Amino acid sequence: MHTAHAQRTHRLQKLLGANDIDTLLVTSPADWYYLTGFTGEAGVLLVTRRGVTLVTDARFTVQAAEELSGVTVVLQQDGVYRTAGRLLPKRKGRRAGIEPNQLTLAQFEALKKATGSAVRFRSVTGLVQSLRACKDPSELAQMRNAAILASEVVEGAIRMLKPGVREFEIAAEIEYQLRKRGASGAAFASIVAFGARAALPHARPTAKRLGKNELVVLDLGAILGKYCSDITRTVYLGKATARIRLWYQAVREAQAAAIAAIMAGASCGDVDAAARGVLAAYKLDQAFVHSTGHGLGLEVHEDPRLAKGQKTKLASGNVVTVEPGVYFAGVGGIRIEDDVAVHEKHTEVLTRASRDFIEL
Amino acid sequence: MHTAHAQRTHRLQKLLGANDIDTLLVTSPADWYYLTGFTGEAGVLLVTRRGVTLVTDARFTVQAAEELSGVTVVLQQDGVYRTAGRLLPKRKGRRAGIEPNQLTLAQFEALKKATGSAVRFRSVTGLVQSLRACKDPSELAQMRNAAILASEVVEGAIRMLKPGVREFEIAAEIEYQLRKRGASGAAFASIVAFGARAALPHARPTAKRLGKNELVVLDLGAILGKYCSDITRTVYLGKATARIRLWYQAVREAQAAAIAAIMAGASCGDVDAAARGVLAAYKLDQAFVHSTGHGLGLEVHEDPRLAKGQKTKLASGNVVTVEPGVYFAGVGGIRIEDDVAVHEKHTEVLTRASRDFIEL
Repeated sequence: MHTAHAQRTHRLQKLLGANDIDTLLVTSPADWYYLTGFTGEAGVLLVTRRGVTLVTDARFTVQAAEELSGVTVVLQQDGVYRTAGRLLPKRKGRRAGIEPNQLTLAQFEALKKATGSAVRFRSVTGLVQSLRACKDPSELAQMRNAAILASEVVEGAIRMLKPGVREFEIAAEIEYQLRKRGASGAAFASIVAFGARAALPHARPTAKRLGKNELVVLDLGAILGKYCSDITRTVYLGKATARIRLWYQAVREAQAAAIAAIMAGASCGDVDAAARGVLAAYKLDQAFVHSTGHGLGLEVHEDPRLAKGQKTKLASGNVVTVEPGVYFAGVGGIRIEDDVAVHEKHTEVLTRASRDFIEL
Repeated sequence: MHTAHAQRTHRLQKLLGANDIDTLLVTSPADWYYLTGFTGEAGVLLVTRRGVTLVTDARFTVQAAEELSGVTVVLQQDGVYRTAGRLLPKRKGRRAGIEPNQLTLAQFEALKKATGSAVRFRSVTGLVQSLRACKDPSELAQMRNAAILASEVVEGAIRMLKPGVREFEIAAEIEYQLRKRGASGAAFASIVAFGARAALPHARPTAKRLGKNELVVLDLGAILGKYCSDITRTVYLGKATARIRLWYQAVREAQAAAIAAIMAGASCGDVDAAARGVLAAYKLDQAFVHSTGHGLGLEVHEDPRLAKGQKTKLASGNVVTVEPGVYFAGVGGIRIEDDVAVHEKHTEVLTRASRDFIEL
């Protein structure tokens, strides 16, 4: 096993006993990639204190042989779950951990059919995710590159904005530029929202054309070397009113306050409160309808979550988005988002685009 | 309710009794879009013989109000599954149908917690999918457009092939062209495979450059107006050897035989056998490592499946891919794929690109 993978697997193995399980069934592609480097899309990884076994199907055995070392690879016979079930030790009192959010009912039934009553299953949530939340230096290096790529693409998209251009044209260009610069894809469906559509935090691009005196929200991310980035910029076509400038300033200050509150040991809820407090001082807290940010890594939404009341403490190696926003139905919205890494003694903003208010 | 939606829901309601259930919980976005037109991404649709209720969250209530008529919309309180569970009639002997492939264990636990023991759950697989397999005229019209779009894009991609171009550059261009021509996205991650990489049926685009005397497999699809298309063409850069020409001819004849075998009433296994028989006559059946095709519609893999031994009979309104291929490790592969609609008295090939062998 590659050193990083061996270390990650070892850390997971130490958690098995504490969670009262003998074997963990790892059933999410991001989790098994993290632990072993296997890029296949179908399988079950069985982790015990003694070793690691991958059950996969014939489409992925060549990949498995190339990518894995120190992992026993088993070809499924009658489905990966049935084959995995048969590999579980059959002594009474054995407990296998499953992730209830990552297993369908049909997959669980297949597992149970194969084990009979000799194995008890125990739901454990987020065991591998808890490890993934703290990135190691090689992961941080990937995430810096992914963040810079997204920053360049958002700046390019801003240069394309002109009266009459359609939301989906900008979205197509964003995704093309991500790919051309080496991303394996967009980390999520890019958001390009003009005018009143910017009031929808999750707007999907439409055929709407950009008009004079409209806000533009651009929210996009890259997957580069398997790791995600996520950036949002809001600009204005025309000369903004005093009200819109004030909203922008409030969101920018809220974001700066949240970034300043990020440090190893701070609680996620306190970071969220820092952003919310600034917006409250502007009497805009009612317009901030979502949470401040989320962890980022192999997936675009990971632990930790920067949300109201979250007691989780930030730790060195966490990478989170910081993305306060304000939304006004029928008028528009403003959101500013950057990706931030937590280090022992400082924070590092990974994304690189200007946060100055831009009027085009 | 829009007429088409009312008809589809009515057909589903007639299936409830036959499957011994009072309520079906529809938990897949493609299924609930088919039945009601709702495009939201989170929810549970409850279908009883008396009516239809959608449980969704605050992100999708505006959409639900715009898109739905004749459907009761309920905002979730403590998760869509708990709220849905509480809405199920609580009399003894009530049976609710769930789709075990579309429900996670955690979602099922939330449902059970809300209903207690008053409701029995019954696994029913593919009830809505069985309706979706037969497209109505409005769906076929969408699918024709999606197929033509993909055909144009594959022809454009072939024109871009020249020595030195990279697989991922072609893939980026394909996805850009799909979007520019109005697709909401690619139906799946486009396959662009040069040379020996063409031997992998599911190759992901890499940085590999196209060299002289290499096969090129291009496999792509559009999502247009919610419906998918799927097309594959294989071309050659250079002057092909007699062996490669023979392989191409064999695959082309195998595809033609399968298309000729498609008719309402024919079994899916017989269509698969038609392709396999031609390849066997060329002694190439061992190189044909997957099945002949799959249904296509709101999702890119649907019923029916054109696979060995499949007894399902084709029916008017089915749309299937026909995609035989041959693969030689270390050398390359050839696949030709078109989308075919089954009508009462004839078949209709929806895709439109030439199947002649192209040497560039």
